[in-house]
Amino acid sequence: MAIVTIVGSGLMGSAMAWPLSDNGHEVRLVGTHLDAGIIQSCQTQRFHPTLKRELPHGVQPYLSDEIGEALRDAEIIVSGVNSHGVRWIAETIGPLLRRGQRLIAITKGLEADDHGTLTILPDVLQAALPEGMRNRIALAAIGGPCIAGELAGRRPSCVVFGCRDAEAAQAFAAAFRTPYYHVWTTTDLLGLEYCAALKNAYALAVGLALGLLEKAGGVDRSGAHTHNLAAAIFAQACTEIERVLEVIGATRRFAYGLPGAGDLYVTSVGGRTVRCGTLLGQGHPMHEVRQIMAGVTLEGAEIVRVMSHGLPRLVADGRLGAQELPLLRTLIEVVVHNQPVRVAAEQFFGALGRV
Amino acid sequence: MAIVTIVGSGLMGSAMAWPLSDNGHEVRLVGTHLDAGIIQSCQTQRFHPTLKRELPHGVQPYLSDEIGEALRDAEIIVSGVNSHGVRWIAETIGPLLRRGQRLIAITKGLEADDHGTLTILPDVLQAALPEGMRNRIALAAIGGPCIAGELAGRRPSCVVFGCRDAEAAQAFAAAFRTPYYHVWTTTDLLGLEYCAALKNAYALAVGLALGLLEKAGGVDRSGAHTHNLAAAIFAQACTEIERVLEVIGATRRFAYGLPGAGDLYVTSVGGRTVRCGTLLGQGHPMHEVRQIMAGVTLEGAEIVRVMSHGLPRLVADGRLGAQELPLLRTLIEVVVHNQPVRVAAEQFFGALGRV
Repeated sequence: MAIVTIVGSGLMGSAMAWPLSDNGHEVRLVGTHLDAGIIQSCQTQRFHPTLKRELPHGVQPYLSDEIGEALRDAEIIVSGVNSHGVRWIAETIGPLLRRGQRLIAITKGLEADDHGTLTILPDVLQAALPEGMRNRIALAAIGGPCIAGELAGRRPSCVVFGCRDAEAAQAFAAAFRTPYYHVWTTTDLLGLEYCAALKNAYALAVGLALGLLEKAGGVDRSGAHTHNLAAAIFAQACTEIERVLEVIGATRRFAYGLPGAGDLYVTSVGGRTVRCGTLLGQGHPMHEVRQIMAGVTLEGAEIVRVMSHGLPRLVADGRLGAQELPLLRTLIEVVVHNQPVRVAAEQFFGALGRV
Repeated sequence: MAIVTIVGSGLMGSAMAWPLSDNGHEVRLVGTHLDAGIIQSCQTQRFHPTLKRELPHGVQPYLSDEIGEALRDAEIIVSGVNSHGVRWIAETIGPLLRRGQRLIAITKGLEADDHGTLTILPDVLQAALPEGMRNRIALAAIGGPCIAGELAGRRPSCVVFGCRDAEAAQAFAAAFRTPYYHVWTTTDLLGLEYCAALKNAYALAVGLALGLLEKAGGVDRSGAHTHNLAAAIFAQACTEIERVLEVIGATRRFAYGLPGAGDLYVTSVGGRTVRCGTLLGQGHPMHEVRQIMAGVTLEGAEIVRVMSHGLPRLVADGRLGAQELPLLRTLIEVVVHNQPVRVAAEQFFGALGRV
């Protein structure tokens, strides 16, 4: 059994405490400076207020200024911060890292530099670590469909751990795997993280269908919804994810496995990303959506913004045709350029013609 | 503009009248002997009672004994019967067919013969036509996500027409395509129909997750559902569909396009197939489910039964490994052999290990 320190006590980071605790690890849960209320509740009442659950037996909560103590002798560190916290966590834990420690990130996202070159967040995190440590710790990330509240409720969940070192991937999986937390592994960290990022953009697209329904007056008197449109968007999303995986040289079958279709399915069930898409579909321009959803991290809109830089780069480099990924282009028009929503289904699947 | 005769006035057959009528065709809607009530309502009130809509302008309803008149000079015939009606329609329209007429089927399913050899329903239909006519009429079928009530509501819908003759496929598509009914074509009729059939089995599997939730006491006090499990089942379903497409030499990308992931998504939204799975997940054995859902055509359970014959054949022929398609095997255990539901997620994706 190992000492495992989770840094960041948001929903997903905290939920990892359940399988880890069930496996007999010594689990330490450290809040960031934004998490003091959560940690205080955990300390005084052993109750996690956002997961709405009693902490598993033995999990020790730490305030952010106790992070040094929390990381002492930890064999595994879980980066539980969101995409905005990647550099913060690298800078915070970097000086405290020891060789042999292993780091696994739940953060999902992509970054674009000034040239539109895309980097997955685990690589951003790694690059922000101190130079001497950068290549001396095993770094993994998690993909696949997993709502945090279900994991903490010990509901069956199937995920994929990605790590470029196959043995390290197996070791991570062995530490986390339980009868309800099913873990597969891959060395294709790049493909896994692209899926994890893109599915947020495409779940927003699925949400457009509900918004367009409401804009058209809602379910009609005969009961007609817009599920057909949502399904077509879903299929186009999987198709575009597959194309991106091909372009970056990643594992194309992720498109219809846990990292692609699986994660897109669970993200499309509901939540903030779908709500963002629904509001856009109703006709609210993006700046209004940001006001309505103030205080909520809009990961879907953020990845669309990132792709608005990455897509022209891929086209300029000749890796992608100028008309490819029409659904992602629609999202960019709506989210980045404040254009009204028009889902041009006839452009899907290589435009009307043979599939 | 053409004369188009729809045979069978169920939901999906009847819904085809909307795009056809909007395209200016002369549309004739013929009930089977089971549809007299529907046709009488259409004749007297111009109201379709199950679609709950006024018939589009110009659509002419015919009772089953008027079928000869309804087929006269028809250029396109739509087979709108369900899987049980395939031989009936072949025998009924067979003697009335003329060379040059074109036939498109909405029926989805597979049949297994005594040896477990599988045949798609369009081929069953074709084989049941009179010998002189069998290869003289173009035969097409429809796949992709399309809830009938949404099509009749002129909601955006994206579908695929399959026909082994590429030109005929294009001609069919041109006759049906409208600004809300987006039609792609394929010559891979086999792959399209396997997807259309299998998605009913797998939507039943997605439904199991909700039933298992209810069996476990429902959403818990902290709000945990079983969406993670449903998503894993969805991804495994796409993965198994892809494998079947590979085995039969069909278009593998259908797994993540409209015929596979798209149609599975819309079928998983709700309806009788999901309800069948949910009842099974709750713990009702299949014979009880049949009682509870008496009078409802259980297409999902039927395709599982067919595959219980087809799967051993594929294994015996060395085309499929004995442990492959674990989710379909689970469905066969539950639906055909009345076993309790146990979703062995650890066997998904080639069993726990690398994806």
